[in-house]
Order: sequence, then structure tokens, then C-alpha cells
Amino acid sequence: MSETRYDVIGIGNALVDVLVSVEDSFLEAEELPKGGMMLVEAAESDALYAKLGQGTESSGGSCGNTMAGFAALGGKGAYIGKVRDDDFGRVFRHDLDALGVSFETTPAGDAAPTGRCLVLVSPDAQRTMVTCLGAASDLTPADIDPKAIGAARVLYLEGYLFDRDDAKKAFAQAGDLAHAAGREVALTLSDGFCVDRHREHFRSLVEEHIDILFANEAEIKSLYEVDSFDEALQHVRKHCKIACLTRSEKGSVVLSGDDVHVVDAVPVDTVVDTTGAGDQYAAGFLFGYTQGYDLYKSGRIGAIAAGEVISHYGARPEVDLKALVAEKLSQ
Amino acid sequence: MSETRYDVIGIGNALVDVLVSVEDSFLEAEELPKGGMMLVEAAESDALYAKLGQGTESSGGSCGNTMAGFAALGGKGAYIGKVRDDDFGRVFRHDLDALGVSFETTPAGDAAPTGRCLVLVSPDAQRTMVTCLGAASDLTPADIDPKAIGAARVLYLEGYLFDRDDAKKAFAQAGDLAHAAGREVALTLSDGFCVDRHREHFRSLVEEHIDILFANEAEIKSLYEVDSFDEALQHVRKHCKIACLTRSEKGSVVLSGDDVHVVDAVPVDTVVDTTGAGDQYAAGFLFGYTQGYDLYKSGRIGAIAAGEVISHYGARPEVDLKALVAEKLSQ
Repeated sequence: MSETRYDVIGIGNALVDVLVSVEDSFLEAEELPKGGMMLVEAAESDALYAKLGQGTESSGGSCGNTMAGFAALGGKGAYIGKVRDDDFGRVFRHDLDALGVSFETTPAGDAAPTGRCLVLVSPDAQRTMVTCLGAASDLTPADIDPKAIGAARVLYLEGYLFDRDDAKKAFAQAGDLAHAAGREVALTLSDGFCVDRHREHFRSLVEEHIDILFANEAEIKSLYEVDSFDEALQHVRKHCKIACLTRSEKGSVVLSGDDVHVVDAVPVDTVVDTTGAGDQYAAGFLFGYTQGYDLYKSGRIGAIAAGEVISHYGARPEVDLKALVAEKLSQ
Repeated sequence: MSETRYDVIGIGNALVDVLVSVEDSFLEAEELPKGGMMLVEAAESDALYAKLGQGTESSGGSCGNTMAGFAALGGKGAYIGKVRDDDFGRVFRHDLDALGVSFETTPAGDAAPTGRCLVLVSPDAQRTMVTCLGAASDLTPADIDPKAIGAARVLYLEGYLFDRDDAKKAFAQAGDLAHAAGREVALTLSDGFCVDRHREHFRSLVEEHIDILFANEAEIKSLYEVDSFDEALQHVRKHCKIACLTRSEKGSVVLSGDDVHVVDAVPVDTVVDTTGAGDQYAAGFLFGYTQGYDLYKSGRIGAIAAGEVISHYGARPEVDLKALVAEKLSQ
């Protein structure tokens, strides 16, 4: 096995989030399925943006958010993803640099700007995302550095990569490299609509290639096309080495063969914006796991990180997450 | 008098804010005077940014914030300021468009990117600002559209414009145009350090050219180089037609000749970030004033708008300000 330099290396679509509050009627008028993530071309993204109120911009991208949380917890992380060298690209890079996440991917050329995700937050704190990948689309197998992959305990991939063929190839190549180097491969299913788009492929991946799976209730039910959470749970426990199934305020279930842990959600005074809840759960779990903590404790850290991020706008932690986890774990 | 198309037209440095939390020790180590606004060149801004943690980006600029709040209250506003046609410039423009603020200024060329202000928020919710003007520096008298100035009841200027000669000329020209068109001219002193840099000039302005002055306690004391608020108040009431002096949790005093109103601050559960408090006070006051409300009621609207903005991160309102004002005024 190569020398270990990172606890986790993540690959994802590098995006800047534009958070805007909207009414439910706006989502209906625009025919945007609430809670989902839609991919659109630049022109459509621009047209929608023009109809929105003022927003707040911040670094995002599902896997980018996870790596930010992971580093905030004290984990050693690396990130692979494509930005352009423009305002948003520099912000994205800065925010990872500031947390000590290694980010060596060569910037994209000038064909497309750094990708952006319009995050529409409705009054019930749900978010509906409209993503224009932009420069993130330029991620190809050439961006996968075998040395970096071999140097990380866990490779973490976001399901959204499956929306593009080149990224899917990069994904497969990275997975093969990790396994060849004796490393583990983790995947998040990303969202229910993403599972709909790639169900067969995701199923065979989960059955044959994934060691650690992250999915929320909607995603895992969609993967197995079943109606109840318990049915989905029974399916998935036959496959992955570890599966973490998250259920919002109902907490999460962590499965590993016969080992099953039910982890409570961390109570939050006011749920402001659920953006990033799944990303931060993954950050917390992977941090615990790579520190050698047991599955229950790792799930608890995931729940603490998720509870923090839904208590404010934005998809990355805003407090000293390390201190928060120390405090909550001792309670 | 020309046809009235706007209630207020504002001129300011168009900036994107990068909000980052810092410890007091960081400000000390970097020798940044807490609560002030420093102007730096691009290289210095970049070097400081590299030392900062992850941030949140949003449209800012003192006058831009005021015009955003003014429009959110229902006022008809216009803005003059320079951005480049880059990511940040487009965000800045979008956020004004979204509120219906007219923004017709020709974008700057490619020499410098859209200006940015690093807003360092310390644990006591104070903010220390480090500004790189970038494209905002390109504002010149040629950008002052006489028709637009003549079409607005009030011209609103930020003191920060005095930091650059071309902008100062644009400022003077706009003021002359407004008065020639029978309009009123309002000024905010912007910050105590800005007053230090331009004291003599500001004094003669206030005595001879300004109809409505906005200043906080530090600024007005600095303008007259006196130690007590009351002394400053006695000085200023001799000059401007109207002066609004803001004092954080002590409320504000609105003066107009012998007319003196003491306006309480609006209580806030938790002061999160004082960025934009003065800007939103001005927005609220100018809204009331241009609606024909009396000075006390106008000051109350200013206090309500300021109270809203300090209860969250960021310098622009996040709630339905019109509804909030209606609710609070009826209490």
C-alpha cells in the first residue's frame, strides 16, 4: 500500500452556490420539482437567475461541502474537481485552501465559467437546486491523479458525477485505482432524481464496487424501487460493507452486515435551511470512521455535523465543528 | 423641475463583500484598526484573503446596500457605480435588478476586476473592512447622467467616494446637478477613518452643500474634533437642513433646525453582525422622508431597517422589510 497522506480524497462537481429564498408558488410556476436537483444549460440558468431575488454566494458542490466539513473536524482531505480561474473559481479554491484541503486539479480553460448551483430555499427550509455545471463539466479521467488516490484511506465520490460521461469515466477509473491500491471506496447517491436517472448503474455499483454507501430515505427507496424504508434497508444490507441511511429528523441507520445502529438526529432549535445536511453527515461519519471510531460514534458525529449545518443558511459549517463535536459527544 | 422618476438616486463604490469571521488576535496581528475601513491595493487584498478562512460572498458597497434596502421598503431608486462584467459584477447587477433598482452605469473595462471588500467580523459582531476598489475606481464624472440626477427627489452620496479624485469630481458634479435641478443632496460620512482623511473638505461640504447628513457618533465627533456626542450635535444642527446621528443601541437623533427627535433603537435578540446598520438606517430614513412622513417616523423606519440587518450576517435585508416596518410601526 502506498504511503497514506490523506484520510479521504473526494471527487465531485465543483460549484458555487447562489442561495435565494423563494415561495412555493415560484417553484410551481417554474415547474421545478421541490427538493430535487436539475441540470440545466447556461442560458436556462441565466434566465432563472434573472427572475430571482438577491442571493448569497458561497462555495458549494456536494463533495466540496463534505471535504470542507471533514477538514473542519480535523480530517486530512484532498479534493478533485474543475473550476475555471475566475472570481467564483478563486473563491472555491480559497475556501478549500483556508481549511487545509489539498486541491491540485488543473483549472479548466476559458470555454465555460465556474459552475454554479441556484439553491432555491422555500419557507419550509427545503432546497431545490438548479445546477449549471460550467467548468465542472471539464473533469475527465486525465484529472484523476493515481498517486493521490493511492495515498488516501477512502475515496469519496458523489453520484452527481454520473450525469456526465467523462466524469463517469473519471469516477470508474478512480474507483479502480483505489481498490487496486487496497483502499476503500465510498459513494453518496446525491439525490432521488439522480438515482432515477442512473438506477441500474448505481445498483450494480453498490452491489459490486462500493464499500461505504451514503443515501437518504428517498434515494435508497428509489434505488430499490420499494415503498418502505425498511424494505430498502433489507436490500442494501446484503451488499455494501457499510451503509449509512439518513432520515432527516428521524435520525440515521448505520448498517454493516449484521451490525445495525440506529442513530438519533441532533435536535435543532430552528431548521433554517437543509442544504448540505447529507454532505455534512457524510463528513462527520467519514471523519469518525477514518479516525478508527466505531460505527455508532461515527454516525453520531455525522448527526452533529448535519445538525449544525441545517441551523443556518449555507451548506458548510459556520462554527468550530471540532469543539462542537467534543461537547456533544460528551453529553 | 424635471419629471420625477426616482425617489432617491445613489452614487457609491460598487463592491462585493466577502464576509469572514475572525478573532480579535487576527486583527491585532495584521494591525487592522477594528471597526474601520482600510483601502488597499489588489496585491495586499489578495495576501490578506489568503490568510482568511472560508467566507460568504454577497453584493455590498455602502450606497449599494442602502439602495437595496430602500427598494425593499418600496422606494423607487437608481444607482450609479462601476463594476466589471465578471462573475462578481454580474452578481452585483443582478441583486439590484432583482429589487427593481435602476442601474444603468456602463461596465468598466477589463483593467481591474469588480471591487471587493473583505469584511472581518469579530466575536463582538463588529466589522473591520479591507477594501480593494478594483473596477469601482473607474467611476468618473462621465458616468454621472444629468437626466437621471435631475429625475430624483434626493441624491444620496457615500463619503467613501472622497478617497479618489475622479470619484470626488463625480460627486461634486452630481451635487451641483441635483441642486441646479431643485433637488436635495444627502451624504453619509461613511466611517470615522474616512472623516479623518477628508475632514476639512467634509466640513465645508456639510456647511454649504449638504441638505441631509447621516453620521454615526464616531463620525460626527471626528468631523468636529470634539469629545462628546452632545457637542457634535450642537455643531451640526447649525448647518444641515437635516442631520441623522446614529448611536447603535442608544438609538438615533434626528435634527432639523430647532426640531430635535430622539429615536430609540429597535431591540434585537442577538446582534450577529453590525455590517450595514448605518446603510439600512439611511435606507429607512430616506424612504420615510421621500414618502412625506415626518422626521420621527422616518427615523423609526431607519431604526427598524437597521435592527433587521444586524440580526443576521450580511449587509442587506433578508426579510420582507415592507411588512416588518408595517408591523413594527403599528406596535
